[in-house]
Amino acid sequence: MKDIQSQPDHRRISIKKVGVKDISYPVTVLDKANKVQKTVATVNMYVNLPHQFKGTHMSRFIEILNDFHGEIKLKSFHHILEEMKDKLQAEAAHLELEFPYFLKKKRGPGRTDMGEYICRMHGSLHKEKDLILEIEVPIAPPTPVQTDTGLPESLGLWGIATISLRFRHFIWIEEIISMVEEITTHDLQWSFTAKNNNTLSVEETATAIGDTIANHRDINWFTVTVENFAKGFSTFASLEWPEASPPIQHSAH
Amino acid sequence: MKDIQSQPDHRRISIKKVGVKDISYPVTVLDKANKVQKTVATVNMYVNLPHQFKGTHMSRFIEILNDFHGEIKLKSFHHILEEMKDKLQAEAAHLELEFPYFLKKKRGPGRTDMGEYICRMHGSLHKEKDLILEIEVPIAPPTPVQTDTGLPESLGLWGIATISLRFRHFIWIEEIISMVEEITTHDLQWSFTAKNNNTLSVEETATAIGDTIANHRDINWFTVTVENFAKGFSTFASLEWPEASPPIQHSAH
Amino acid sequence: MKDIQSQPDHRRISIKKVGVKDISYPVTVLDKANKVQKTVATVNMYVNLPHQFKGTHMSRFIEILNDFHGEIKLKSFHHILEEMKDKLQAEAAHLELEFPYFLKKKRGPGRTDMGEYICRMHGSLHKEKDLILEIEVPIAPPTPVQTDTGLPESLGLWGIATISLRFRHFIWIEEIISMVEEITTHDLQWSFTAKNNNTLSVEETATAIGDTIANHRDINWFTVTVENFAKGFSTFASLEWPEASPPIQHSAH
Amino acid sequence: MKDIQSQPDHRRISIKKVGVKDISYPVTVLDKANKVQKTVATVNMYVNLPHQFKGTHMSRFIEILNDFHGEIKLKSFHHILEEMKDKLQAEAAHLELEFPYFLKKKRGPGRTDMGEYICRMHGSLHKEKDLILEIEVPIAPPTPVQTDTGLPESLGLWGIATISLRFRHFIWIEEIISMVEEITTHDLQWSFTAKNNNTLSVEETATAIGDTIANHRDINWFTVTVENFAKGFSTFASLEWPEASPPIQHSAH
Repeated sequence: MKDIQSQPDHRRISIKKVGVKDISYPVTVLDKANKVQKTVATVNMYVNLPHQFKGTHMSRFIEILNDFHGEIKLKSFHHILEEMKDKLQAEAAHLELEFPYFLKKKRGPGRTDMGEYICRMHGSLHKEKDLILEIEVPIAPPTPVQTDTGLPESLGLWGIATISLRFRHFIWIEEIISMVEEITTHDLQWSFTAKNNNTLSVEETATAIGDTIANHRDINWFTVTVENFAKGFSTFASLEWPEASPPIQHSAH
Repeated sequence: MKDIQSQPDHRRISIKKVGVKDISYPVTVLDKANKVQKTVATVNMYVNLPHQFKGTHMSRFIEILNDFHGEIKLKSFHHILEEMKDKLQAEAAHLELEFPYFLKKKRGPGRTDMGEYICRMHGSLHKEKDLILEIEVPIAPPTPVQTDTGLPESLGLWGIATISLRFRHFIWIEEIISMVEEITTHDLQWSFTAKNNNTLSVEETATAIGDTIANHRDINWFTVTVENFAKGFSTFASLEWPEASPPIQHSAH
Repeated sequence: MKDIQSQPDHRRISIKKVGVKDISYPVTVLDKANKVQKTVATVNMYVNLPHQFKGTHMSRFIEILNDFHGEIKLKSFHHILEEMKDKLQAEAAHLELEFPYFLKKKRGPGRTDMGEYICRMHGSLHKEKDLILEIEVPIAPPTPVQTDTGLPESLGLWGIATISLRFRHFIWIEEIISMVEEITTHDLQWSFTAKNNNTLSVEETATAIGDTIANHRDINWFTVTVENFAKGFSTFASLEWPEASPPIQHSAH
Repeated sequence: MKDIQSQPDHRRISIKKVGVKDISYPVTVLDKANKVQKTVATVNMYVNLPHQFKGTHMSRFIEILNDFHGEIKLKSFHHILEEMKDKLQAEAAHLELEFPYFLKKKRGPGRTDMGEYICRMHGSLHKEKDLILEIEVPIAPPTPVQTDTGLPESLGLWGIATISLRFRHFIWIEEIISMVEEITTHDLQWSFTAKNNNTLSVEETATAIGDTIANHRDINWFTVTVENFAKGFSTFASLEWPEASPPIQHSAH
């Protein structure tokens, strides 16, 4: 057996990132209509280590998460990053969350649906702090008005729009969802005729969403990816604005 | 610590099923156009033990699978079950496979798509042998004729039809797929108009498929489940024929 | 095109089950330590239709779920089933939930972990009501006492125990989890030696759990399945008690 | 309705990437022992468009894939990228594959297991060509010698090592797998004692793998991520070599 411990350290490749991932955790997030909303997140927490460090105290990640009782508001998000950087003596700290966000929607008299939107928050603290918010908005062809015989059958799922953004001032998740749904439900041409059932194109849908978000004064960077489901594969188109500023790499891998 | 081994056995609850599950394995299955097709299956193998048995030789399941070199034709399927029952001295043997089955489809001049269909084979050998074949057929609204500008954008995925069946004589997977696709593509009314974009109903689609399969002379039992995707949920309808004969329970759990 | 609507109905195969599935929904469940716990469930709701019915009002399933505001306590569970059977004029009603249940666990001084346990509740109301509770308890080899250098590295995941049960009187989810963890952590022999690192057997672990649950006066039926993860597959053993009484079939498929 | 088509194009944000993703496709890959191996891949194909382009011919991606009959050898990989760049008049072309790779392993007299390793190939062709190969190698504690009573029960899954690399000369997938398994099975200290069951640390395991790969003359860039499964979360450590050269961004999103 090779004696790993006794090898001179300077010859060895340094660990770059170390942390805890795929933590399932109940969290409280901000909700425009109800102040807060309780949901369940998958959490990744990790740090960049300085060169001389060989490892870190993994249990501290969980302790820091517990200290905040799952309150994931904008302020606590940065506090968690500061605690991580401080307590783990790290060069940089990363916090990633993914959670379903629920939104009640009136669909007609006496009918309310519960919309589910997958959200991600990827924050980091190096010399400066950075936060990217990502929201997935499902896209479906509009269904006709509700009839006596109940729920009109759905035309199925057309696809999904994924918006990633950095903001100057706080933006509600609801606001992004409304912006995208307004475009995919009303602005775009869903024409269905017996002979030529046109549908959206991924390029046009991505561009329509991009043009609208670019006009939002509080958003200073974003990407839009629009995916259209087909049998056995998806087509997609994506754009980024402004193009010159690439996003910081965020990934627990 | 409680001494489990020394407890009198007659007081203890007997193990009912024991086996190996979630084995990822390359397999060869029958293909109407190309004789055979190579794909990758997830395999479960398990047995019902007689009362006095406490456990079994888990490695023998893998050995038996290796002996057949992944050749999952109708004959070898029953041979594997016989080997399992015999070598493991079991009351009953169960073999379950799930694999993607690929089918090339012409969609227009110079355009071929590779269709993917999830298939399952659940076989058992107790006093008699039993085999259930299950096929998932995706359903999508018909797309218009191909134009110069390439692939017409898809209207998305409407849903999925799942057919489970027992047969008297061998039936090609291709035959079931064609039967279902003929109904969902041509027989059913997909009317798209500007004012009232009707779509299929899960009940009507399930009934249309059921009526057709019931007329197939080689099929002596089946279920049909039709699922329609909507934002955040699915609706579904299912039927079984003949109703009097429930399926044998097949599950590795 | 075949005119489906005009076919005489008596020749057609009846729809057996119809409903809504895979609804993602925030729910409130009972919690022994904190009275209630908020989590997120995947919900299936469906009914058995009488023969002459062709379909049902799909939107009513969602309306009924909304009326209960996601309060999934034992009483409301049966009320939802009654509403479904009543409002949809059904022969039988089915309600299935799957959700992660969280439990704080002290692991040492200043260290608390958040345990996640997947739970399922499958209820039905035909002539009588029936409820099956299912809990998944992960099994890991015991780790040594916490040291200065932080979290002791985990020995990995050994497997999972899944308990399904029917009860005479209400049982806390916490009680089942404790029962299983007591057995897998303390009662069973985890011996690690340099030459022969014995581990648990799936048969012995299933039997040890089964023997304990069989002695619980409030449980009148159960199954135990114990799964051991290996590279590329799992081995498993399962038992049922009492053997004579098979479970009612519960599945949205 | 907003008329999107008539908006002046220069005011609009350009589509950056467009393509087809999540194509399930049967492929043939190189196999050291058997020359080739048939498996099933998930494929993403996309291009970077020049600024003035509004969209592309999505069907051509599938046509190019069909032309190569799923032969994913090193040469054909680059030919596919060239065809994509050429036929779609793109600035850059990207091809991503993920597939299970199977390897037979002798475990003792008369016992062979089929190991499954998830592999990814991410290739791109811009001004220069680039190819990253990624392999996931599961890590499990060593099990004792096989006994009469069959398969020794597994100690479970400790975790997974993921190796990404760029090479100067062709390297067999088998070679990387052997290198990692040699380290995790033999070189590292798995000591199991009654009082102190030490296990691997993610940092040491990542460093041991990194030190070995760094000595391979044909590899000129790599990352190693080692993940250790625990109940409800994983811990991980990752490193990169050489640190100065970040990987080209590869992602269909």
